[in-house]
Amino acid sequence: MIPLEEAREHVLSRVGTLPARQVPLDEALGLVLAEPVTSSEPIPAFANTAMDGYALRAADTVGAPVELEVVGTIGAGDDGSLHVGEAQAARIMTGAPIPPGADAVVKVELTSPAGGPGDRVRVEASVKAGNHIRHPGEDVAAGEQVLDAGTVVTPGRVGLLAAVGAYEVAAHGRPRVGVLSTGDELADTPGPLRRGQIRDTNRRTLLSMVAEAGFEGVDLGIAPDRPDDISRAFEAGAADCDAVLSSGGVSMGDFDYVKVVLDRIGDMRWMQIAIKPAKPFAFGLVDGTPVFGLPGNPVSSMVSFELLAKPGLRAMAGHGADDLGPALVRAVCGDELGHRSDGKTHFVRVAATRDERGVLRVVRSGGQGSHQLAAMTRADALAVVPDGARLGVGDPVDVIVL
Amino acid sequence: MIPLEEAREHVLSRVGTLPARQVPLDEALGLVLAEPVTSSEPIPAFANTAMDGYALRAADTVGAPVELEVVGTIGAGDDGSLHVGEAQAARIMTGAPIPPGADAVVKVELTSPAGGPGDRVRVEASVKAGNHIRHPGEDVAAGEQVLDAGTVVTPGRVGLLAAVGAYEVAAHGRPRVGVLSTGDELADTPGPLRRGQIRDTNRRTLLSMVAEAGFEGVDLGIAPDRPDDISRAFEAGAADCDAVLSSGGVSMGDFDYVKVVLDRIGDMRWMQIAIKPAKPFAFGLVDGTPVFGLPGNPVSSMVSFELLAKPGLRAMAGHGADDLGPALVRAVCGDELGHRSDGKTHFVRVAATRDERGVLRVVRSGGQGSHQLAAMTRADALAVVPDGARLGVGDPVDVIVL
Repeated sequence: MIPLEEAREHVLSRVGTLPARQVPLDEALGLVLAEPVTSSEPIPAFANTAMDGYALRAADTVGAPVELEVVGTIGAGDDGSLHVGEAQAARIMTGAPIPPGADAVVKVELTSPAGGPGDRVRVEASVKAGNHIRHPGEDVAAGEQVLDAGTVVTPGRVGLLAAVGAYEVAAHGRPRVGVLSTGDELADTPGPLRRGQIRDTNRRTLLSMVAEAGFEGVDLGIAPDRPDDISRAFEAGAADCDAVLSSGGVSMGDFDYVKVVLDRIGDMRWMQIAIKPAKPFAFGLVDGTPVFGLPGNPVSSMVSFELLAKPGLRAMAGHGADDLGPALVRAVCGDELGHRSDGKTHFVRVAATRDERGVLRVVRSGGQGSHQLAAMTRADALAVVPDGARLGVGDPVDVIVL
Repeated sequence: MIPLEEAREHVLSRVGTLPARQVPLDEALGLVLAEPVTSSEPIPAFANTAMDGYALRAADTVGAPVELEVVGTIGAGDDGSLHVGEAQAARIMTGAPIPPGADAVVKVELTSPAGGPGDRVRVEASVKAGNHIRHPGEDVAAGEQVLDAGTVVTPGRVGLLAAVGAYEVAAHGRPRVGVLSTGDELADTPGPLRRGQIRDTNRRTLLSMVAEAGFEGVDLGIAPDRPDDISRAFEAGAADCDAVLSSGGVSMGDFDYVKVVLDRIGDMRWMQIAIKPAKPFAFGLVDGTPVFGLPGNPVSSMVSFELLAKPGLRAMAGHGADDLGPALVRAVCGDELGHRSDGKTHFVRVAATRDERGVLRVVRSGGQGSHQLAAMTRADALAVVPDGARLGVGDPVDVIVL
């Protein structure tokens, strides 16, 4: 058996970052920028008002209340060419340009219509020059770098990119991840099962995990247990996708064709990892495309995806070395989480709640068999229990939040 | 000003849960089940082996090592009709049915080929009846309810649903959420800005937040500042979508057509909420469709979405009352987070790191102006600072993790 970290390093040493390409902004959410983004223009581009109100000369508000002549209205989108002179004001709405002559804004709540002839406003408070004015370049200077290469495009950053006019960005591709099941015993349609048949669950679970991780899943279907079919399925997946996941056929057992085929068409490394569940794992390249051989038990395939495949796929997507996951969070045990020494780190399915101090408290979420999907679906997190550790209530434990 | 909780309750009292419909399993990820799901079949459906190895009679392994006659091979998908008699064994692979006559499995690692004529195996260890056998219904009994109504479909649950043959599920719809911007000043294409123009950021940010929250975003574009255009845009959005988000035009200012139009075509409630940022907020129904009027400043619109629109949309999607968010997590202040009393709860943009106990420690992430999108994009969380609170380093504070 090898340590988990060795298997992970092996994967990371062999996957490559997907090349940069120009991506329309509305397809960039979740991608990793391949180049820094600079703003070609200052933001704001022109002096404008942060409030609805009146643009005027601050000097005219000394000794307020005062009454001023209203020379017009400047809406958002107006070019603000209206001139404001002494004892004058222009009605102005948030975001509209400050008109020439004015040097301050009084918000509408501090004004009222003045009586008498003409359009006049009563200003209740005196303000200083610059009041409520946003200056050009206050947020972003022209030429300023707003985002580094390697930054993940979040919703706020989509807005920031739009703000600087970056409607196309250079980003690493979103991995297309093919998911394949193999086995004559697998059924994938409604209706009664023949004796010996089981329903394929891993392919659908893994496609869902791929989607949740922000990658593009490609359903490669179920290949029958014949070497030629298995070989064709992997080769077609490798040609069409950036990576291929399969589940099953990676254990020590000697009755499986997946191993035979992958050894022929790829340069696989077959690993036994010192973890439970998800001990068997394989990784290699088929025609240059990374292939992850996950264990066949449903819970094991999920844990293996989280610990080994997802970090590799995140590296392909351009995420930085310290952001590949899975992230460990310090928690405390709500029940006993030990196990007898078997040379393995155990990933125990736990339910997590936060205590009044904000600390996660975790308890076992039910059956821990690697085929027990129902218990797995009740788990919020995996507690990382080192080999032979006997953790009592209140002891610290690292967890991976699912 | 009204408390945030009152605005939130108002929204929740007026949105309806989207009706249940039958959804193919491969489109169900993230949806909320509208009906419980029961299994029509036991899982496993038949006794099978948890390991690759040999199926045999446990009694024959007493006094191991022993040599047994190999009568054949049972692969996954075989019907397991091969009979295993006394002093016999069948090669068997994980998941394959236990053949009649056998009552235990010895894993392959504890066996070796035996010498001599014929196909014989040497078994190195004695095992008990039932060894490595998974029994029918061990995971799920026939007729057992595996998931409740109201359950969110996670990747593991997609697998569980496939396992019980539920290839279609009754689930609440995924809200289609239209996002609209209004304003003549808004540009949405590359190239230099005219004086007075700014780039539309909110629509793209909100569409991204809608997508990240698992809803379906519909881009309703930018409506010009004319009552007829605004009215047509909201009515078309209300007809096509389950909900409509717009940003801007909800403040106290008196120069905006959005307010006039929405008051004519909808039953809007215009609110001033005791929070900063995101004080102004509007909610109502247009032709029966919920319309959320978010504030126009970029940071305010994001905070308003998180605090008010997202909970409403999650309620529409069928999430339970205690799972609408935003979830508060207890953290500690890494710097001073107080503010002078202004009658408002402040949502301070903070960067969060975890200390050695797993507790989040938060510090201001930069400029707090409600238009300062660049600082917002560096925030991991919003710290909830009650009115007038003066929080020092080490003081507890609730945060919303973004």
